[in-house]
Amino acid sequence: MGIYLDHAATTYTDERVLEAMLPYFKDVFGNASSAHGYGQEAERGVGIARQQVADAIGAKRDEVYFTSGGTESDNWAIKGAAEAAKKGHIVTSAVEHHAVLDTCKYLETRGFDVTYLPADGSGLISADSVAGAIRDDTVLVSIMFANNEVGTLMPIREIGQIARARGVLFHTDAVQAIGHVPIDVDALGIDMLSLSAHKFYGPKGAGALYIRHGTGIAKFMHGGAQEKDMRASTLNTPGIVGLGAAIELAAAEREQNNAHEAVLAKRLRDGLLALPMTKLNGHETSRLPGNVNITFRGIEGEALMIHLDLEGIAVSTGSACTSGSTSPSYVLLAMGLSTVDARAAIRFTVGRGNTAQDIDTVIEKTKNVAERLREISPLFAQYKGDKKYV
Amino acid sequence: MGIYLDHAATTYTDERVLEAMLPYFKDVFGNASSAHGYGQEAERGVGIARQQVADAIGAKRDEVYFTSGGTESDNWAIKGAAEAAKKGHIVTSAVEHHAVLDTCKYLETRGFDVTYLPADGSGLISADSVAGAIRDDTVLVSIMFANNEVGTLMPIREIGQIARARGVLFHTDAVQAIGHVPIDVDALGIDMLSLSAHKFYGPKGAGALYIRHGTGIAKFMHGGAQEKDMRASTLNTPGIVGLGAAIELAAAEREQNNAHEAVLAKRLRDGLLALPMTKLNGHETSRLPGNVNITFRGIEGEALMIHLDLEGIAVSTGSACTSGSTSPSYVLLAMGLSTVDARAAIRFTVGRGNTAQDIDTVIEKTKNVAERLREISPLFAQYKGDKKYV
Repeated sequence: MGIYLDHAATTYTDERVLEAMLPYFKDVFGNASSAHGYGQEAERGVGIARQQVADAIGAKRDEVYFTSGGTESDNWAIKGAAEAAKKGHIVTSAVEHHAVLDTCKYLETRGFDVTYLPADGSGLISADSVAGAIRDDTVLVSIMFANNEVGTLMPIREIGQIARARGVLFHTDAVQAIGHVPIDVDALGIDMLSLSAHKFYGPKGAGALYIRHGTGIAKFMHGGAQEKDMRASTLNTPGIVGLGAAIELAAAEREQNNAHEAVLAKRLRDGLLALPMTKLNGHETSRLPGNVNITFRGIEGEALMIHLDLEGIAVSTGSACTSGSTSPSYVLLAMGLSTVDARAAIRFTVGRGNTAQDIDTVIEKTKNVAERLREISPLFAQYKGDKKYV
Repeated sequence: MGIYLDHAATTYTDERVLEAMLPYFKDVFGNASSAHGYGQEAERGVGIARQQVADAIGAKRDEVYFTSGGTESDNWAIKGAAEAAKKGHIVTSAVEHHAVLDTCKYLETRGFDVTYLPADGSGLISADSVAGAIRDDTVLVSIMFANNEVGTLMPIREIGQIARARGVLFHTDAVQAIGHVPIDVDALGIDMLSLSAHKFYGPKGAGALYIRHGTGIAKFMHGGAQEKDMRASTLNTPGIVGLGAAIELAAAEREQNNAHEAVLAKRLRDGLLALPMTKLNGHETSRLPGNVNITFRGIEGEALMIHLDLEGIAVSTGSACTSGSTSPSYVLLAMGLSTVDARAAIRFTVGRGNTAQDIDTVIEKTKNVAERLREISPLFAQYKGDKKYV
């Protein structure tokens, strides 16, 4: 196996999580909606998982709704709030994940007004800009907890206070933050929160949407009466049980995991920034512990990524959900990077299983690849001798 | 373990399917959208599964879109077709699954006209009634392949021909039929088809929607560019690989499984109909092989179900998605049963793992429970001496 430094795209499923899931495939396989014993046994597993999710974010158990993942949670939260409100204005940011951005763009075609707040150079959305954007007809504020490309942590508590004071619903896509940041939905004034198990060593295909009691939200999936008649579909019991186990483990081991990731990320960041003409993207300090996003001037990020892949090192040029696209990262552009610098960026995201040895290998390989690529880069020739970049 | 006769609600995951899935949790855990090796390896598994689904229904590989299950597939097909058409009329039936029915009811609130075709006494929707309901502004026909409560097989080929001749899109919820009935979307004139893995010994949380090339359909989930930019969300690779393995096995072993189920279902049906005042619900012959739906006159189905559950026998009073509801089955009512007879119905659905011994036990236990319940039933007293029921 190689070295995996793309934990923001997805994580492997923790051995303990998989162990918790396995009985739900073959022994406790009942439909959690069935009234008989097989169903009740499955429903007990779902109930435990619901409590685990609730405990992890300071919610009540019946405010947790299981979904198929972060994208569905985001779609439901935003379209559901919009539909309940019938019309109005939505405040979001230019650096949200596509699941929020594209949903908002869709709602614009359905008659909603949307404000996309700009980010500053570190990827931060200021609480003041949220306050300034709220109008009398604003029905929803949706700002991510932490950015998926540069790891910048947003001022969620301040935004929550502002939304609450103005009587506007506040949704946050916490897909990248869960597992890394302690979250209390009451203390932070969050009305809806999206999360996805596969970002914190749980299974793919399992997510949740927290919906505060009393929140006006329409259904997204129509059909059976599951999830208090709010989200139809047979419950994915193995996935839900895995989500519950993973979020409990992530909360219990958060400090040690964060410390481990922070040490390795610092080692990686220092090592990469010691290479010539490199620059950190995102906030200096207010960022997810494992995120290191670096622009390598004079290099195509895509080429660097591919060459590292050939060396068995997995990194990313941006969100996995936009891979295959040849456009530069819209997040980095929104932060003010030039197209050339945005194209020259690589996201490294450290995880639980990485070692200092991994990091040293990655620094060494990146150095070698970067040098080779720069030698053949017409772009790089432009920078040579330009003092501001050396 | 008891005796499970609720395979229409859900099935356990086949050992071979689980084996196929396991590597995708921990080893091949990459995000299938990631460009690096971890992602490509995951994407290879997804590609194989897509081909397996395509082969099972006579589709092309790029006409298969993975979803979180049957409910999402139904929601997407119907809302997506409606949104693409902007306005118009939809033809469906009164005996569809709630995922279709409630989606259509929702669309009525959004300005669409919906015709809910009645079923005959055997649960059948006639092709003639579909032909008669299609109007100039009809944009979609959605008729299930086989009913989930009584197992009645619908005249899909005739309906497909009619829809094609009239230039109307034809969607079918094949959630109960897949695995039991050979399906060729071209031969049957199907434009969209919903399926769900957990109904044919695959995992919960994994489904697919077949969409014929050229079908006008809007997105349901907005976000990343997965599934040819038509269904956002990180691919649930273990679930998708399990779906693929399960559908291939179901197709390969269909005849032997159907024969096994048909033999046991006949044994069960004969044994139960030999009890006094019982009646088969659904079609005499045109039904899913494992479905035996019986009205036990003078008994509350709910009470019979609970007593059988205490004996370790899992059966259902209707769809699992409506469990907990105290209303009689809308499917049986639509077939013309009285409320009392509808409440007295039990759905037994035989599966791969059942044995003749299971069936004999179930007949014996049902006989005993039914007798006990009738002794204390005020309802039963009314029937006594009424010749038409003896």
